Amino acid sequence: MKEYELKDIQLGMTAEFGVTITEKMQNHFREITGDVNPMHESKEFALEKGFPDKLVFGMLTASFFSTLVGVYLPGKNCLFQECQNIRFHAPVFVGDELTIKGEVTEIDERFKRITVKAIIRNKENKKICSAKLIAGVTK
Amino acid sequence: MKEYELKDIQLGMTAEFGVTITEKMQNHFREITGDVNPMHESKEFALEKGFPDKLVFGMLTASFFSTLVGVYLPGKNCLFQECQNIRFHAPVFVGDELTIKGEVTEIDERFKRITVKAIIRNKENKKICSAKLIAGVTK
Repeated sequence: MKEYELKDIQLGMTAEFGVTITEKMQNHFREITGDVNPMHESKEFALEKGFPDKLVFGMLTASFFSTLVGVYLPGKNCLFQECQNIRFHAPVFVGDELTIKGEVTEIDERFKRITVKAIIRNKENKKICSAKLIAGVTK
Repeated sequence: MKEYELKDIQLGMTAEFGVTITEKMQNHFREITGDVNPMHESKEFALEKGFPDKLVFGMLTASFFSTLVGVYLPGKNCLFQECQNIRFHAPVFVGDELTIKGEVTEIDERFKRITVKAIIRNKENKKICSAKLIAGVTK
């Protein structure tokens, strides 16, 4: 885990990590949220709606933004404050390999917080999710 | 699960449900995301940072927005497209009883989607998280 302090952070700094979405993640997410929408459970239902397979929960994909700020940028000294404009650009399926990447685009010395522009891409380099994260840096 | 079609939805419609945050949810979320930040695991660390106990992951709290649109408003015919401006207004702790409430504030007939203004409050009625959700309605 990174332990950046505010003084260590510069504009343009980036961080990146990869994950593979598993059925177990889907099940855990469903258990946490109680979101039993068939779009995420039934291939047949997803086919009816025009998708080739059941979809991974958008907010499951977005939950990796928590990891991006909490583990990587700034890491240990993070206090996540806002997650702006999450957009689900393209569907995600179980088995997809995703890359979560963030770049520091603003540093607010007065309020001790940073803005991280975050983009998640799949193996085909297609943008599937994006957001603007605002994280306090507590040290 | 609700099964609203676009024609059934009116401005001002609301939906609401409650959850109690458990340690198991925290563990599931950590397992999904790999977010091992000590703020969510160690009371001692949280105390150092000025909080009375370890914090629930902000994005775990926000994940109930998935349930709000996927199960309640519009429910089965939901296709979650955007989650705008998630703000974490106040800390959440394990054991907190939360109420997730949504209200339809826009209906876009042309693109078959609705905007749901969402607010999560704790038992003391304190606003702890808010966002603006945009959900496609596939029927």
